[in-house]
Amino acid sequence: MAAVTAHKILTIVCDVALPPAALALLESGVSPHCLIVRQNKSLDDADIVFGQPDPAALLSSNVKWAHISSAGITRYDTPEVRTSLREKGITLTNSSSVYFEPCAEHLLAFMLAASRNLPTSLASQHVSPSTPEWAALRNSMALLVGQSAVILGYGAIARRLVELLAPFRMSIVGFRRNPRGDEGVPMVSTDGDLSVALSATDHVINILPDSAETHRFFNAVRFDSLKRGVFFYNIGRGATVDQEALADALHRGTVAAAWLDVSDPEPLPADHPLVLAPNCHITPHLGGGQTREKEALVEHFVKNVAAHIAGRGMADVVV
Amino acid sequence: MAAVTAHKILTIVCDVALPPAALALLESGVSPHCLIVRQNKSLDDADIVFGQPDPAALLSSNVKWAHISSAGITRYDTPEVRTSLREKGITLTNSSSVYFEPCAEHLLAFMLAASRNLPTSLASQHVSPSTPEWAALRNSMALLVGQSAVILGYGAIARRLVELLAPFRMSIVGFRRNPRGDEGVPMVSTDGDLSVALSATDHVINILPDSAETHRFFNAVRFDSLKRGVFFYNIGRGATVDQEALADALHRGTVAAAWLDVSDPEPLPADHPLVLAPNCHITPHLGGGQTREKEALVEHFVKNVAAHIAGRGMADVVV
Repeated sequence: MAAVTAHKILTIVCDVALPPAALALLESGVSPHCLIVRQNKSLDDADIVFGQPDPAALLSSNVKWAHISSAGITRYDTPEVRTSLREKGITLTNSSSVYFEPCAEHLLAFMLAASRNLPTSLASQHVSPSTPEWAALRNSMALLVGQSAVILGYGAIARRLVELLAPFRMSIVGFRRNPRGDEGVPMVSTDGDLSVALSATDHVINILPDSAETHRFFNAVRFDSLKRGVFFYNIGRGATVDQEALADALHRGTVAAAWLDVSDPEPLPADHPLVLAPNCHITPHLGGGQTREKEALVEHFVKNVAAHIAGRGMADVVV
Repeated sequence: MAAVTAHKILTIVCDVALPPAALALLESGVSPHCLIVRQNKSLDDADIVFGQPDPAALLSSNVKWAHISSAGITRYDTPEVRTSLREKGITLTNSSSVYFEPCAEHLLAFMLAASRNLPTSLASQHVSPSTPEWAALRNSMALLVGQSAVILGYGAIARRLVELLAPFRMSIVGFRRNPRGDEGVPMVSTDGDLSVALSATDHVINILPDSAETHRFFNAVRFDSLKRGVFFYNIGRGATVDQEALADALHRGTVAAAWLDVSDPEPLPADHPLVLAPNCHITPHLGGGQTREKEALVEHFVKNVAAHIAGRGMADVVV
C-alpha cells in the first residue's frame, strides 16, 4: 500500500455511538483529519468509515477503507460482497484484536463454571456437608485438567483460549475449513475427521461465524454424534446451531450442559425450547464486553489510521 | 527412615467411608497387609491409620503413621499436637496432593465468574442488546489479564493457581509467615508489607488454614484497608474471616463481590448477615470435589504405603 500523501486531509465518518471519553480519544487520535460523527449511515464525502456501514452503501461510496467496530462481520462475509470490495479496491478491517481477550476469558469462565457446576453449587449454599445431597453435589464436580476439547472456528479467540488452557494440559483439536499450519494445535478440516473428533470429546467449543456454510452447522445429526455428557459452548453466532436440536440433546442428556453467549434471535423468547431446556445457561451476548470496550475499539482504530496513513500494514485485515 | 522389614504384616485402620470401587482399590493396594475398615475411630492394634483419627486417641495409640484424608489438618495443627507427635515418633501426612487441582480450578472458576459477572449475566438472558440495561451489563464485564492479586496461605493450592493464572500475566504477590524462597512469585511475610500489597490489589485470594494465628485474620481493619471494588475469595477456612465485617464491606462496596467455598459454620443460617449481603456467592465446601475424589484419596494413600514400606520419602509429610 502506498503512503497517503502527507498533506491530504482525509474525511473519516464514524457511525459508532461513543461515550464522551471514547469520543475524545477518537477526536485527538485522528487529528488533523476531518472527523464526522454521524448516526444516519450516510457515507457522503467519506474516505474512511469506522463502525457498521451498510454493505450496499459501502460498495456504492467513495470509501477506500472500512473499519468494522466488531469482530463479527456476517453482513460483509459473503462471496459477493468480498468480490465487490476487492474489485472496488476497498479495504475491510475488523476489530478482532479488541475482542479476542474478553471472548476467550468468557469462554474459560463458561468452561470452569460448567466443570464446577456453579449454577447448582451456588444455589446449594444451604446444603450441609455430610448429607447425601452434599456428597452427590461434591461428586458432580469435574476437573478440566487432562480433558479433551474440539474448537470450531479457529481464529484469534481460539488462539487465545488455547493459551489460557495450556496449564490444563488438555487434548485440543481445532476445526477450520482451511488450516494454515500455524494454529499450534492439531487441526481437522473435513467433516469426516471432525465427526471422529466430536464423537470422543468432553468439550465442544463453537466459535463459528455465521455464513452460508456454517448456518445450522450444529444440527440433530451432529448433536447425536457427541459422546454422552459433553459440554457445549457457543460464543460465535446463534444461527450456527439448530436450537431445537440442542434443546432435544439437553433433554436426552447427550449434552450435559450448554453455555451460550449467543442465540438466534437475541434474546430468545421466554417460551423458546432452549430457554425451557434443562442445564441451558445463557448470557446475553456479553462475551466481548469489558469496562473499557469503546475506548479499546477507538484505540485499535486509531492505530490502524496511523498505519493506513503511513502505508504500513494494518491489523485485522479481512479484505 | 529405615525400610520396614519385608515380612512384617502391618495393620492399617481406615475410618473413611468409601464406596465399593474405592474400597476395592484400597484392599488390593495395601495387600498383603491387614486392612481394618472401622468407623468407630478405635485405633486398637493399628500400625497405620488412614482417615480422620481423633488427635488424643492418635497420641495414646501405637500408631506409627497417620495419613489424614483431607488437605485441612486444623485439629492436628497446634504446637502441642505437633510436639507430641514428634516426641512419640508418629509421622503425619495429609492429602494435599489430591486437593490442590480441584481447589485451584474452583478458585479460577470463582475469579472468572466474578470478572464476567456470571450470576447477573445468567439472570439477564432476556435482556435485549442495544438497550441501556444491556450496555450497563456489558460495561460491567472485567478482564483478568493484567490485573493484580494477593494470595494468602501459600501452599500447594496457591502454587497450582499461579500456574493456571500464568497466561493472564497478572501481578501476583504471595503471603506466608515463613517464605521458603522457592514460591515463584514475590512474597510478603510481615503485616506491614501485606497491608501495602492488600491496599492496591484487585483480587484477594484467601487460602489460609485455621489456626490460632489466622483466626479472624480478615477483620474489619483489614477489609477497610482494601481498594474499593476488590474481589474477595475464600477457599481456606471460614474461621479466618470476621464474617460480619465482610458483610459490612459488601454493603459498603469496599468488596465488590465475595466468592466463598467455606464459612463458619457450614452451612450458614439463612438469616446470617453474609447470606443476606449483596454480591456474596457461596458454594458449600465443594472446592475439593471431583468425580473420582475417593479413588484419588485411596491412590494417594496407597502410594504412600508403598513408600513407607520401602523406606522412601512419603508425599505430603506434615510432621
